[in-house]
Amino acid sequence: MATQPVPVVTAFSWVPEFARGLVRDLRVRWALEEIGAPYGTELLNARSPRPDDYLSWQPFDQVPAFRDGDLKLFETGAILLYLGEKDERLLPAQPQARWTAIAWLFSALNSVEPVIGRIVAYDIFNADKEWAPAARESALGLCRQKLKRVTDALAGKDWLAGPFSIADIAMATVLNNLRHTDLVAEFPALAAYKARAEERPAYKRALEAQLADFEDAPAQAV
Amino acid sequence: MATQPVPVVTAFSWVPEFARGLVRDLRVRWALEEIGAPYGTELLNARSPRPDDYLSWQPFDQVPAFRDGDLKLFETGAILLYLGEKDERLLPAQPQARWTAIAWLFSALNSVEPVIGRIVAYDIFNADKEWAPAARESALGLCRQKLKRVTDALAGKDWLAGPFSIADIAMATVLNNLRHTDLVAEFPALAAYKARAEERPAYKRALEAQLADFEDAPAQAV
Repeated sequence: MATQPVPVVTAFSWVPEFARGLVRDLRVRWALEEIGAPYGTELLNARSPRPDDYLSWQPFDQVPAFRDGDLKLFETGAILLYLGEKDERLLPAQPQARWTAIAWLFSALNSVEPVIGRIVAYDIFNADKEWAPAARESALGLCRQKLKRVTDALAGKDWLAGPFSIADIAMATVLNNLRHTDLVAEFPALAAYKARAEERPAYKRALEAQLADFEDAPAQAV
Repeated sequence: MATQPVPVVTAFSWVPEFARGLVRDLRVRWALEEIGAPYGTELLNARSPRPDDYLSWQPFDQVPAFRDGDLKLFETGAILLYLGEKDERLLPAQPQARWTAIAWLFSALNSVEPVIGRIVAYDIFNADKEWAPAARESALGLCRQKLKRVTDALAGKDWLAGPFSIADIAMATVLNNLRHTDLVAEFPALAAYKARAEERPAYKRALEAQLADFEDAPAQAV
Protein backbone atom coordinates (compact mmCIF):
# COMPACT_ATOMS: atom_id res chain seq x y z
CA MET A 1 0.00 0.00 0.00
CA ALA A 2 1.52 3.31 -1.06
CA THR A 3 1.83 5.88 1.69
CA GLN A 4 1.04 9.56 1.15
CA PRO A 5 4.29 11.52 0.94
CA VAL A 6 4.59 14.03 3.75
CA PRO A 7 6.13 17.52 3.54
CA VAL A 8 9.82 17.71 4.32
CA VAL A 9 11.64 20.48 6.15
CA THR A 10 15.41 20.82 6.46
CA ALA A 11 16.96 21.45 9.87
CA PHE A 12 20.37 21.22 11.52
CA SER A 13 21.66 18.17 13.37
CA TRP A 14 23.73 20.42 15.63
CA VAL A 15 23.95 24.11 16.50
CA PRO A 16 25.67 25.94 19.38
CA GLU A 17 23.71 26.33 22.61
CA PHE A 18 22.75 29.99 22.01
CA ALA A 19 20.90 29.04 18.81
CA ARG A 20 18.92 26.08 20.15
CA GLY A 21 15.23 26.85 20.03
CA LEU A 22 15.89 29.76 17.67
CA VAL A 23 16.74 28.01 14.40
CA ARG A 24 14.10 28.96 11.90
CA ASP A 25 12.87 25.49 11.01
CA LEU A 26 11.00 25.90 14.32
CA ARG A 27 8.56 28.26 12.59
CA VAL A 28 7.69 25.67 9.98
CA ARG A 29 7.46 22.80 12.48
CA TRP A 30 5.15 24.97 14.65
CA ALA A 31 2.79 25.69 11.75
CA LEU A 32 2.69 22.02 10.81
CA GLU A 33 2.00 21.05 14.43
CA GLU A 34 -0.86 23.59 14.65
CA ILE A 35 -2.71 21.76 11.88
CA GLY A 36 -1.59 18.29 12.92
CA ALA A 37 0.19 17.70 9.64
CA PRO A 38 2.84 14.97 9.75
CA TYR A 39 6.19 15.94 8.26
CA GLY A 40 9.67 14.59 7.71
CA THR A 41 13.02 16.24 8.27
CA GLU A 42 16.26 16.26 6.34
CA LEU A 43 18.99 17.03 8.83
CA LEU A 44 22.07 18.96 7.69
CA ASN A 45 25.30 19.24 9.60
CA ALA A 46 25.85 22.92 10.40
CA ARG A 47 29.58 22.23 10.75
CA SER A 48 30.01 20.62 7.31
CA PRO A 49 29.38 21.95 3.81
CA ARG A 50 25.83 21.35 2.59
CA PRO A 51 25.14 18.85 -0.20
CA ASP A 52 26.24 20.13 -3.62
CA ASP A 53 22.73 20.80 -4.87
CA TYR A 54 21.41 22.45 -1.71
CA LEU A 55 21.83 25.99 -3.05
CA SER A 56 19.39 25.24 -5.86
CA TRP A 57 16.80 24.56 -3.15
CA GLN A 58 17.85 27.12 -0.52
CA PRO A 59 19.87 29.84 -2.32
CA PHE A 60 21.21 31.31 0.95
CA ASP A 61 22.56 27.95 2.19
CA GLN A 62 20.44 28.13 5.33
CA VAL A 63 17.66 26.15 6.95
CA PRO A 64 14.81 25.63 6.55
CA ALA A 65 14.10 24.60 3.00
CA PHE A 66 10.74 22.94 2.42
CA ARG A 67 9.32 20.41 -0.01
CA ASP A 68 5.70 19.35 -0.47
CA GLY A 69 5.49 16.73 -3.21
CA ASP A 70 7.13 18.32 -6.25
CA LEU A 71 6.91 21.86 -4.90
CA LYS A 72 10.11 23.31 -3.44
CA LEU A 73 10.22 26.39 -1.29
CA PHE A 74 12.54 28.47 0.87
CA GLU A 75 12.23 31.45 3.26
CA THR A 76 10.19 30.89 6.41
CA GLY A 77 7.80 33.70 5.45
CA ALA A 78 6.97 31.99 2.17
CA ILE A 79 6.66 28.55 3.76
CA LEU A 80 4.34 29.91 6.47
CA LEU A 81 2.21 31.59 3.81
CA TYR A 82 2.10 28.36 1.79
CA LEU A 83 0.87 26.43 4.83
CA GLY A 84 -1.53 29.25 5.70
CA GLU A 85 -3.16 29.03 2.30
CA LYS A 86 -3.82 25.36 2.95
CA ASP A 87 -5.53 25.75 6.33
CA GLU A 88 -7.71 28.46 7.86
CA ARG A 89 -6.38 27.64 11.31
CA LEU A 90 -3.17 29.30 10.14
CA LEU A 91 -4.57 32.08 7.94
CA PRO A 92 -8.16 33.37 8.04
CA ALA A 93 -10.05 33.26 4.74
CA GLN A 94 -12.03 36.51 5.14
CA PRO A 95 -10.17 39.02 2.93
CA GLN A 96 -9.45 41.83 5.44
CA ALA A 97 -8.43 39.35 8.15
CA ARG A 98 -6.29 37.44 5.65
CA TRP A 99 -4.44 40.54 4.47
CA THR A 100 -4.03 41.85 8.00
CA ALA A 101 -2.39 38.54 8.94
CA ILE A 102 -0.16 38.67 5.86
CA ALA A 103 0.78 42.28 6.63
CA TRP A 104 1.79 41.26 10.16
CA LEU A 105 3.72 38.28 8.79
CA PHE A 106 5.79 40.70 6.71
CA SER A 107 6.02 43.10 9.68
CA ALA A 108 7.57 40.44 11.86
CA LEU A 109 10.18 39.67 9.23
CA ASN A 110 10.86 43.11 7.74
CA SER A 111 9.87 45.76 10.35
CA VAL A 112 10.78 43.96 13.59
CA GLU A 113 13.37 41.23 12.92
CA PRO A 114 16.02 43.45 11.26
CA VAL A 115 16.59 45.64 14.33
CA ILE A 116 16.42 42.62 16.64
CA GLY A 117 19.05 41.07 14.39
CA ARG A 118 21.28 44.06 15.05
CA ILE A 119 20.97 43.62 18.81
CA VAL A 120 21.83 39.92 18.40
CA ALA A 121 24.78 40.80 16.16
CA TYR A 122 26.21 43.07 18.86
CA ASP A 123 25.37 40.90 21.89
CA ILE A 124 26.19 37.45 20.53
CA PHE A 125 28.36 37.61 17.43
CA ASN A 126 30.46 40.66 18.38
CA ALA A 127 30.29 40.46 22.17
CA ASP A 128 34.06 40.77 22.44
CA LYS A 129 34.36 43.87 20.26
CA GLU A 130 35.17 47.23 21.80
CA TRP A 131 32.69 49.01 19.53
CA ALA A 132 29.76 46.67 20.23
CA PRO A 133 28.27 48.48 23.28
CA ALA A 134 28.09 51.82 21.45
CA ALA A 135 26.63 50.20 18.34
CA ARG A 136 24.07 48.42 20.51
CA GLU A 137 23.15 51.66 22.22
CA SER A 138 22.52 53.26 18.84
CA ALA A 139 20.06 50.50 17.87
CA LEU A 140 18.20 50.29 21.19
CA GLY A 141 15.89 53.25 20.58
CA LEU A 142 14.68 51.84 17.28
CA CYS A 143 14.30 48.39 18.80
CA ARG A 144 12.18 49.69 21.68
CA GLN A 145 10.11 51.75 19.25
CA LYS A 146 9.29 48.66 17.17
CA LEU A 147 8.43 46.64 20.28
CA LYS A 148 6.17 49.45 21.48
CA ARG A 149 4.39 49.62 18.11
CA VAL A 150 3.66 45.90 18.20
CA THR A 151 2.52 46.17 21.83
CA ASP A 152 0.18 49.04 20.97
CA ALA A 153 -1.26 47.12 18.03
CA LEU A 154 -2.03 44.18 20.33
CA ALA A 155 -4.18 46.31 22.67
CA GLY A 156 -7.39 44.40 23.38
CA LYS A 157 -6.33 41.48 21.18
CA ASP A 158 -4.90 38.06 21.88
CA TRP A 159 -3.37 37.73 18.43
CA LEU A 160 -2.17 40.16 15.77
CA ALA A 161 -4.82 39.52 13.14
CA GLY A 162 -7.73 38.52 15.38
CA PRO A 163 -7.56 34.72 15.35
CA PHE A 164 -4.18 33.02 15.85
CA SER A 165 -2.29 32.95 12.55
CA ILE A 166 1.06 32.56 10.82
CA ALA A 167 1.70 36.19 11.78
CA ASP A 168 1.90 35.13 15.43
CA ILE A 169 4.23 32.24 14.64
CA ALA A 170 6.54 34.68 12.90
CA MET A 171 6.29 37.43 15.52
CA ALA A 172 6.70 35.20 18.59
CA THR A 173 9.75 33.47 17.14
CA VAL A 174 11.23 36.79 16.02
CA LEU A 175 10.78 38.21 19.54
CA ASN A 176 12.42 35.14 21.03
CA ASN A 177 15.73 36.20 19.51
CA LEU A 178 15.80 38.73 22.37
CA ARG A 179 15.52 35.99 25.01
CA HIS A 180 19.03 36.84 26.26
CA THR A 181 17.79 40.37 27.14
CA ASP A 182 15.03 42.03 29.17
CA LEU A 183 13.80 44.08 26.22
CA VAL A 184 10.53 42.22 25.66
CA ALA A 185 9.87 42.25 29.42
CA GLU A 186 9.92 46.06 29.27
CA PHE A 187 6.56 45.75 27.49
CA PRO A 188 4.42 43.53 29.75
CA ALA A 189 1.58 43.11 27.24
CA LEU A 190 4.10 42.02 24.63
CA ALA A 191 5.74 39.60 27.04
CA ALA A 192 2.28 38.19 27.83
CA TYR A 193 1.57 37.80 24.12
CA LYS A 194 4.84 35.94 23.59
CA ALA A 195 4.13 33.70 26.59
CA ARG A 196 0.61 33.02 25.27
CA ALA A 197 2.11 31.89 21.97
CA GLU A 198 4.73 29.71 23.62
CA GLU A 199 2.11 28.03 25.79
CA ARG A 200 0.42 26.57 22.74
CA PRO A 201 0.88 22.80 22.64
CA ALA A 202 1.90 22.98 18.98
CA TYR A 203 4.77 25.33 19.87
CA LYS A 204 5.94 22.99 22.62
CA ARG A 205 5.86 19.98 20.31
CA ALA A 206 7.77 21.88 17.61
CA LEU A 207 10.42 23.05 20.06
CA GLU A 208 10.83 19.58 21.51
CA ALA A 209 11.22 18.15 17.99
CA GLN A 210 13.89 20.70 17.03
CA LEU A 211 15.87 20.10 20.22
CA ALA A 212 15.56 16.32 19.95
CA ASP A 213 17.07 16.43 16.45
CA PHE A 214 20.39 17.77 17.74
CA GLU A 215 22.96 14.96 17.82
CA ASP A 216 23.92 15.57 21.39
CA ALA A 217 20.42 16.29 22.67
CA PRO A 218 19.61 14.71 26.02
CA ALA A 219 16.70 12.26 26.04
CA GLN A 220 14.44 14.89 27.67
CA ALA A 221 15.40 17.91 25.65
CA VAL A 222 12.87 20.49 26.87
CA MET B 1 -21.57 59.09 -13.78
CA ALA B 2 -19.85 57.46 -10.80
CA THR B 3 -16.14 56.90 -11.24
CA GLN B 4 -14.40 53.70 -10.16
CA PRO B 5 -12.45 54.36 -6.93
CA VAL B 6 -8.73 53.82 -7.45
CA PRO B 7 -6.27 52.32 -4.95
CA VAL B 8 -4.58 54.81 -2.65
CA VAL B 9 -0.98 54.71 -1.41
CA THR B 10 0.49 56.96 1.27
CA ALA B 11 3.77 58.74 0.62
CA PHE B 12 5.78 61.63 2.04
CA SER B 13 5.55 65.20 0.79
CA TRP B 14 9.16 65.80 1.76
CA VAL B 15 12.19 63.70 2.74
CA PRO B 16 15.91 64.55 2.94
CA GLU B 17 17.96 64.23 -0.22
CA PHE B 18 19.57 60.90 0.75
CA ALA B 19 16.14 59.22 0.94
CA ARG B 20 14.70 60.48 -2.35
CA GLY B 21 14.08 57.57 -4.68
CA LEU B 22 14.40 55.13 -1.77
CA VAL B 23 11.14 55.71 0.15
CA ARG B 24 9.20 52.48 0.04
CA ASP B 25 6.03 53.79 -1.58
CA LEU B 26 8.18 53.51 -4.72
CA ARG B 27 7.75 49.72 -4.62
CA VAL B 28 3.97 50.02 -4.67
CA ARG B 29 3.93 52.75 -7.32
CA TRP B 30 6.22 50.58 -9.49
CA ALA B 31 3.94 47.54 -9.25
CA LEU B 32 0.90 49.67 -10.10
CA GLU B 33 2.73 51.19 -13.07
CA GLU B 34 3.71 47.73 -14.36
CA ILE B 35 0.04 46.82 -14.74
CA GLY B 36 -1.10 50.29 -15.79
CA ALA B 37 -3.35 50.66 -12.76
CA PRO B 38 -4.28 54.24 -11.89
CA TYR B 39 -3.81 55.15 -8.23
CA GLY B 40 -4.11 58.07 -5.89
CA THR B 41 -1.74 59.25 -3.17
CA GLU B 42 -2.23 60.60 0.32
CA LEU B 43 0.80 62.69 1.11
CA LEU B 44 2.04 62.89 4.70
CA ASN B 45 4.47 65.43 6.02
CA ALA B 46 7.53 63.54 7.28
CA ARG B 47 8.36 66.51 9.54
CA SER B 48 4.95 66.65 11.30
CA PRO B 49 3.09 64.07 13.38
CA ARG B 50 0.88 61.77 11.28
CA PRO B 51 -2.92 62.06 11.51
CA ASP B 52 -4.31 60.65 14.77
CA ASP B 53 -5.75 57.52 13.22
CA TYR B 54 -2.79 56.68 10.99
CA LEU B 55 -1.41 54.03 13.35
CA SER B 56 -4.59 52.00 12.98
CA TRP B 57 -3.78 51.80 9.26
CA GLN B 58 0.04 51.66 9.42
CA PRO B 59 1.03 50.41 12.90
CA PHE B 60 4.70 51.41 12.48
CA ASP B 61 3.85 55.02 11.52
CA GLN B 62 5.65 54.70 8.21
CA VAL B 63 4.83 54.88 4.52
CA PRO B 64 3.42 53.30 2.52
CA ALA B 65 -0.02 52.29 3.70
CA PHE B 66 -2.39 51.10 1.01
CA ARG B 67 -6.14 51.07 0.48
CA ASP B 68 -8.14 49.35 -2.25
CA GLY B 69 -11.84 50.04 -1.74
CA ASP B 70 -12.58 48.89 1.80
CA LEU B 71 -9.44 46.79 2.15
CA LYS B 72 -6.59 48.34 4.11
CA LEU B 73 -3.06 47.07 4.05
CA PHE B 74 0.46 47.89 5.21
CA GLU B 75 3.99 46.51 4.65
CA THR B 76 5.38 46.72 1.12
CA GLY B 77 5.80 42.94 0.96
CA ALA B 78 2.10 42.40 1.66
CA ILE B 79 0.99 45.15 -0.74
CA LEU B 80 3.19 43.72 -3.51
CA LEU B 81 1.74 40.27 -2.89
CA TYR B 82 -1.81 41.69 -2.95
CA LEU B 83 -1.17 43.33 -6.32
CA GLY B 84 0.59 40.20 -7.56
CA GLU B 85 -2.46 38.10 -6.82
CA LYS B 86 -4.48 40.45 -9.02
CA ASP B 87 -2.25 40.32 -12.08
CA GLU B 88 -0.03 37.62 -13.60
CA ARG B 89 2.33 40.27 -14.95
CA LEU B 90 3.42 40.71 -11.33
CA LEU B 91 3.18 37.13 -10.07
CA PRO B 92 3.08 34.01 -12.25
CA ALA B 93 0.10 31.70 -11.73
CA GLN B 94 1.91 28.36 -12.24
CA PRO B 95 2.39 27.01 -8.69
CA GLN B 96 6.18 26.45 -8.63
CA ALA B 97 6.87 29.77 -10.36
CA ARG B 98 4.41 31.53 -8.03
CA TRP B 99 6.03 30.15 -4.89
CA THR B 100 9.54 30.78 -6.20
CA ALA B 101 8.58 34.41 -6.74
CA ILE B 102 7.04 34.63 -3.28
CA ALA B 103 10.14 33.02 -1.74
CA TRP B 104 12.33 35.62 -3.44
CA LEU B 105 9.99 38.40 -2.31
CA PHE B 106 10.57 37.30 1.28
CA SER B 107 14.29 36.85 0.57
CA ALA B 108 14.64 40.44 -0.55
CA LEU B 109 12.97 41.67 2.62
CA ASN B 110 14.23 39.19 5.22
CA SER B 111 17.51 37.68 3.93
CA VAL B 112 18.98 40.65 2.04
CA GLU B 113 17.50 43.94 3.31
CA PRO B 114 18.42 43.50 7.01
CA VAL B 115 22.18 43.45 6.43
CA ILE B 116 21.90 46.24 3.85
CA GLY B 117 20.01 48.17 6.53
CA ARG B 118 22.99 47.74 8.84
CA ILE B 119 25.36 49.20 6.24
CA VAL B 120 22.97 52.14 5.77
CA ALA B 121 22.71 52.61 9.55
CA TYR B 122 26.48 52.90 9.82
CA ASP B 123 27.11 54.96 6.66
CA ILE B 124 24.17 57.37 6.82
CA PHE B 125 22.61 57.52 10.28
CA ASN B 126 25.78 57.08 12.34
CA ALA B 127 28.34 58.46 9.92
CA ASP B 128 29.78 60.75 12.58
CA LYS B 129 30.25 58.01 15.22
CA GLU B 130 33.69 56.77 16.10
CA TRP B 131 32.50 53.15 16.28
CA ALA B 132 30.73 53.16 12.90
CA PRO B 133 33.66 52.08 10.68
CA ALA B 134 34.40 49.02 12.83
CA ALA B 135 30.72 48.08 13.00
CA ARG B 136 30.47 48.48 9.23
CA GLU B 137 33.50 46.30 8.71
CA SER B 138 31.89 43.56 10.82
CA ALA B 139 28.77 43.55 8.61
CA LEU B 140 30.52 43.72 5.24
CA GLY B 141 31.32 40.01 4.99
CA LEU B 142 27.70 39.02 5.53
CA CYS B 143 26.51 41.71 3.13
CA ARG B 144 28.84 40.52 0.37
CA GLN B 145 27.81 36.91 1.04
CA LYS B 146 24.12 37.77 0.54
CA LEU B 147 24.88 39.75 -2.63
CA LYS B 148 26.90 36.82 -3.97
CA ARG B 149 24.07 34.37 -3.23
CA VAL B 150 21.59 36.51 -5.15
CA THR B 151 24.09 36.91 -8.00
CA ASP B 152 24.64 33.15 -8.16
CA ALA B 153 20.89 32.51 -8.17
CA LEU B 154 20.50 34.87 -11.14
CA ALA B 155 22.95 32.88 -13.30
CA GLY B 156 21.39 32.45 -16.74
CA LYS B 157 18.23 34.32 -15.74
CA ASP B 158 16.99 37.84 -16.34
CA TRP B 159 14.69 37.79 -13.29
CA LEU B 160 14.63 35.92 -10.00
CA ALA B 161 11.59 33.73 -10.63
CA GLY B 162 11.77 33.39 -14.42
CA PRO B 163 9.41 36.10 -15.63
CA PHE B 164 9.62 39.58 -14.08
CA SER B 165 7.70 39.63 -10.79
CA ILE B 166 7.12 41.40 -7.49
CA ALA B 167 10.29 39.65 -6.28
CA ASP B 168 12.32 41.80 -8.67
CA ILE B 169 10.56 44.98 -7.55
CA ALA B 170 11.48 44.13 -3.97
CA MET B 171 15.05 43.02 -4.71
CA ALA B 172 15.98 45.91 -7.02
CA THR B 173 14.66 48.51 -4.56
CA VAL B 174 16.36 46.76 -1.63
CA LEU B 175 19.68 46.75 -3.52
CA ASN B 176 19.29 50.46 -4.31
CA ASN B 177 19.74 51.26 -0.62
CA LEU B 178 23.43 50.58 -1.35
CA ARG B 179 23.56 53.24 -4.09
CA HIS B 180 25.95 55.31 -1.96
CA THR B 181 28.48 52.43 -2.09
CA ASP B 182 30.25 50.28 -4.71
CA LEU B 183 29.05 47.03 -3.13
CA VAL B 184 26.57 46.05 -5.86
CA ALA B 185 29.14 46.96 -8.53
CA GLU B 186 31.46 44.31 -7.03
CA PHE B 187 29.04 41.78 -8.54
CA PRO B 188 28.72 42.76 -12.22
CA ALA B 189 25.84 40.37 -12.97
CA LEU B 190 23.93 41.77 -9.99
CA ALA B 191 24.61 45.33 -11.08
CA ALA B 192 23.36 44.41 -14.56
CA TYR B 193 20.21 42.90 -13.04
CA LYS B 194 19.55 46.05 -11.03
CA ALA B 195 20.12 48.22 -14.10
CA ARG B 196 17.77 45.99 -16.12
CA ALA B 197 15.07 46.52 -13.50
CA GLU B 198 15.61 50.27 -13.36
CA GLU B 199 15.43 50.55 -17.13
CA ARG B 200 11.81 49.39 -17.10
CA PRO B 201 9.49 52.26 -18.08
CA ALA B 202 7.23 51.45 -15.10
CA TYR B 203 10.14 51.97 -12.69
CA LYS B 204 11.01 55.31 -14.31
CA ARG B 205 7.40 56.49 -14.09
CA ALA B 206 7.14 55.42 -10.44
CA LEU B 207 10.39 57.17 -9.53
CA GLU B 208 9.37 60.33 -11.33
CA ALA B 209 6.03 60.31 -9.50
CA GLN B 210 7.67 59.89 -6.08
CA LEU B 211 10.16 62.69 -6.73
CA ALA B 212 7.51 65.00 -8.16
CA ASP B 213 5.42 64.63 -4.98
CA PHE B 214 8.11 66.26 -2.83
CA GLU B 215 7.11 69.85 -2.05
CA ASP B 216 10.33 71.34 -3.23
CA ALA B 217 10.75 69.08 -6.25
CA PRO B 218 11.96 70.89 -9.35
CA ALA B 219 9.61 70.81 -12.33
CA GLN B 220 11.76 68.13 -13.99
CA ALA B 221 12.42 65.86 -11.07
CA VAL B 222 14.25 62.97 -12.74
